[in-house]
Amino acid sequence: MKRTHSNGELRLSHVGQHVDLVGWVSKKRNFGQLNFIDLRDRSGICQLLFDETFSETLKNVRNEYVLSVSGTVVERKDKNPDLATGDIEVQVDQVTVVNEAKTTPLIIADETDALEDTRLEYRYLDLRRPIMQKKLMMRHQITRSMRDYLDNHAFIEIETPMLGKSTPEGARDYLVPSRVHPGSFYALPQSPQLYKQLLMISGFERYYQFARCFRDEDLRADRQTDFTQVDIETSFLTENEILTMMEEMMKKLMKEVKGLDIETPFLRLTYKEAMNRYGSDKPDNRFGLELQEITSIFEHTEFGVFKSVVEAKGSIKAIVVPDFAHITRKQIDAFTNLAKKNGAKGLVVLKAVDQDLTGSARKFLSDDEVKALYETLNLKDQDCVFIVSDTWSRTCTVLGALRNEIGQQLGLKKKNEFSFLWVTEFPMFEYSEELGRYQALHHPFTQPMEEDIPLLDTDIETVRANAYDIILNGYELGGGSLRIYDNKLQEKIFELLGFTEEQIKDKFGFFIDAFQYGTPPHGGLAFGLDRIAMILTESDSIRDVIAFPKNANAKCPMSKAPTPVDPAQLKELHIQITEKEKTED
Amino acid sequence: MKRTHSNGELRLSHVGQHVDLVGWVSKKRNFGQLNFIDLRDRSGICQLLFDETFSETLKNVRNEYVLSVSGTVVERKDKNPDLATGDIEVQVDQVTVVNEAKTTPLIIADETDALEDTRLEYRYLDLRRPIMQKKLMMRHQITRSMRDYLDNHAFIEIETPMLGKSTPEGARDYLVPSRVHPGSFYALPQSPQLYKQLLMISGFERYYQFARCFRDEDLRADRQTDFTQVDIETSFLTENEILTMMEEMMKKLMKEVKGLDIETPFLRLTYKEAMNRYGSDKPDNRFGLELQEITSIFEHTEFGVFKSVVEAKGSIKAIVVPDFAHITRKQIDAFTNLAKKNGAKGLVVLKAVDQDLTGSARKFLSDDEVKALYETLNLKDQDCVFIVSDTWSRTCTVLGALRNEIGQQLGLKKKNEFSFLWVTEFPMFEYSEELGRYQALHHPFTQPMEEDIPLLDTDIETVRANAYDIILNGYELGGGSLRIYDNKLQEKIFELLGFTEEQIKDKFGFFIDAFQYGTPPHGGLAFGLDRIAMILTESDSIRDVIAFPKNANAKCPMSKAPTPVDPAQLKELHIQITEKEKTED
Repeated sequence: MKRTHSNGELRLSHVGQHVDLVGWVSKKRNFGQLNFIDLRDRSGICQLLFDETFSETLKNVRNEYVLSVSGTVVERKDKNPDLATGDIEVQVDQVTVVNEAKTTPLIIADETDALEDTRLEYRYLDLRRPIMQKKLMMRHQITRSMRDYLDNHAFIEIETPMLGKSTPEGARDYLVPSRVHPGSFYALPQSPQLYKQLLMISGFERYYQFARCFRDEDLRADRQTDFTQVDIETSFLTENEILTMMEEMMKKLMKEVKGLDIETPFLRLTYKEAMNRYGSDKPDNRFGLELQEITSIFEHTEFGVFKSVVEAKGSIKAIVVPDFAHITRKQIDAFTNLAKKNGAKGLVVLKAVDQDLTGSARKFLSDDEVKALYETLNLKDQDCVFIVSDTWSRTCTVLGALRNEIGQQLGLKKKNEFSFLWVTEFPMFEYSEELGRYQALHHPFTQPMEEDIPLLDTDIETVRANAYDIILNGYELGGGSLRIYDNKLQEKIFELLGFTEEQIKDKFGFFIDAFQYGTPPHGGLAFGLDRIAMILTESDSIRDVIAFPKNANAKCPMSKAPTPVDPAQLKELHIQITEKEKTED
Repeated sequence: MKRTHSNGELRLSHVGQHVDLVGWVSKKRNFGQLNFIDLRDRSGICQLLFDETFSETLKNVRNEYVLSVSGTVVERKDKNPDLATGDIEVQVDQVTVVNEAKTTPLIIADETDALEDTRLEYRYLDLRRPIMQKKLMMRHQITRSMRDYLDNHAFIEIETPMLGKSTPEGARDYLVPSRVHPGSFYALPQSPQLYKQLLMISGFERYYQFARCFRDEDLRADRQTDFTQVDIETSFLTENEILTMMEEMMKKLMKEVKGLDIETPFLRLTYKEAMNRYGSDKPDNRFGLELQEITSIFEHTEFGVFKSVVEAKGSIKAIVVPDFAHITRKQIDAFTNLAKKNGAKGLVVLKAVDQDLTGSARKFLSDDEVKALYETLNLKDQDCVFIVSDTWSRTCTVLGALRNEIGQQLGLKKKNEFSFLWVTEFPMFEYSEELGRYQALHHPFTQPMEEDIPLLDTDIETVRANAYDIILNGYELGGGSLRIYDNKLQEKIFELLGFTEEQIKDKFGFFIDAFQYGTPPHGGLAFGLDRIAMILTESDSIRDVIAFPKNANAKCPMSKAPTPVDPAQLKELHIQITEKEKTED
């Protein structure tokens, strides 16, 4: 099968050349005895022109047939400016039908109205759509760019085990029964966390891995049974050095993949700032609508709702949405429901009209309070004000959710805008009502901030960690931390988390041993590659940037995995089924 | 922690500079009040010199402590030519003990006498040995070089599913119970074979993936529970184009990683030639000792053993080992045992002495036969001749095994010599006594050679496939084939393999469907990355080039995986254990 050129590369400069092309029939038209075929390959489409001598050969040729042709590049009379190759066509002198094709169950074009389950069942055809090919090619570009940066900065990629030990902490493990060791199981890795830290103990200093990770949790748009993590760990670097390096990597990535110059250093918000200003630890700062603190206005308020919050040392905050005073009762109800879904007891909505405020809560406010709101919030006529009063954390979270929804509704989240930032200084601990104790917000190996170490003994809740997340457009792209390398500090943290010595041994065993043989200061982070690819390809779902994803039911509609297996297989693995699925889905 | 330089990079040209270094104490010596410390990091070792003011600080410092030091580079009086940094030392003016270290259970040095299970249990320390670091770094260099080639030749990396469908063919699957679908299981991929062919159907044209693959088979020196495959597939290329591209990739690899210029094209042996000359389909041609055909000498022999083989249309072949006539009875017995272990009924060993042959079989040979052997084999005095007579295939295999053993014993397998070759034209089918039918030698999608297609109807055993293996130093580095893309041919192959329509649907289901929508001609191959790394790092086991390998018992001595798990985990997965391991290992 001869092939001298790709279809998409032919231009006016090729006119007169004799070329050999291969590809798929994307469209066939005939005008009397003349046949036109758009021949598609990975690079694009080229128009072929067949004279009447080919009529018989082409009679049965339909879309998606595979052809091999020879011909001469000629200039087109009716140029097609929408097509890269639109200035030329190929006058064919020889054609071979390489393979036939049945009618495809979905149309091979960028636009599709096929259901997602159809797309997944015939994924090999869905991936033939040029837009899907471009997405996967961009994913590859992304990995190339990141690898390239890491390779050129003394990082080495090291593969860590896929068949590891199950640990009770964290998400649910996928288990793999052992044939050789009856009754024992491997676990698929949730992340290479322990291994990457061990590699630092081994002295590799700079490690990375594009690692497949597994969590047996229920799926949603941006979650799959498994995902790919760009896992990074370094020794002897400060938090700032790590962050700066990662910014450089992302800057290079955005330039190479999107052709965009992004500014570094990225905005760095402490966790507290992020919550105060955006009501989220993964703020989308492509748009404003920032949260504003107004508690002090209501220090002596008569409005019962606010008053009780002020007395309880809670927080009252507002979002101002310009020119939004026209919202309907129905919209207000929807926003109120959203607020309640996020744990608020209620939502105050006020509209700035004629130097006053309107809305059902107006009657509880004094004129001075209205005036103070106008001043503090710098209100303009037709502004709409959303106020939440609750504990600090709930006030932030609720308004953060509202802010995101309003940003969405107003079209402020532009897919072709990219805004990076870091959130730093995360709390070290969070209280778990379920466990009745504190637990590590990141993981128990996270380094508390030097200056907060004394607080471990006095005010554990305020201890901040050297932990950081990188955010793009409101998505957490990745996160990491410096790790504890001091045995005594590690012991103290375990103690604070309520672990007994036995539990420590059981949970972390060899890992804790390893720390006693000369552990270097180290830290790192991990990026979610699927999310990066989703955002940079401007897709709505990570399924669009995974070649063969599972559906929301953790099933592959194409291969039908998971499936029942031969009982002999289970016997070899020393297990039996206790329950069978009732209906096929 | 300041660090201006790596320890290994300091040279005479740095003399006079003030530097900040970090690393591990590799050795500490003191001469009176003077202390010398070899400080090690990933890049190498640098000698530190401490005057008497540091005696107190350094009193407790031992090997593998982590230090941070500042000092001035000075020229050494007693230069150490064995060390890259041996011309200089650093006169320290400031030191911080960053971390302490217990005495390590194995010595951190290239040479080790630690048992492998100890090395694996403390793998993080084993990997701290510079020789192990170099091996993993070379593995990274290998992947970089191969990726780089593929990226620059229009290949794109696409990740395929880790949680797939269990298929009854091939090796044993590792299974993963599904929580969401009770009684159903995913299988970890044995290879991305189906997916890479689907990606060709999708029109990606050139795909690669560094893919983790899993086979639940018993382990040995060059096999692990999982391995990394450089998986490659292309569309619209001929076998020769694929092989040539891969040769270029390996040439570049050998240059970049080993600094060696290797010649291309590689030797290409057909399967038949490889068997005839080397008695193996993965010949090690770093040395000669080729098999020689001598059946015709014995056409009219009186020697019963040879006579029956000649009559049965078998094959008689010999290996000549120069200057080997001194071998003892004991050695001959060992070689005879090896021959028998490989299925031979016996082994004829003759020694060329004084223009005659000696050995227990001499008395059955005529003088003419001896003369003919001298001529055909071009015998010299003190040569040793090994003769096997059996079916063609067994004669080849047995002598191939002997050849390998003798090559090993004579030290002809030099680890720093690298000899690549291709074996092509593999048989399409092999008869399985177990199944009572023919089965595909590679897999049922392998394309038979064009010219042999008529033989499918008449002489199935002689049909050759467009299948190829790449061999390095007697190891199969990888292999692949062109694939069938014609539905009718595929059906015929399935028929010949004895599959019913139902079986086809059951085994290959959606995959066969996919072939009806315009499949391009395609083919590819896969390399075993672990093996490549093992050979290029001149290691004896793939375990030396895997960061955290399993032992021969499929267990990780460090994490202890696989382990028993919480019964609640199994309950969620709808399975229970039918048998428990009796003793802990």
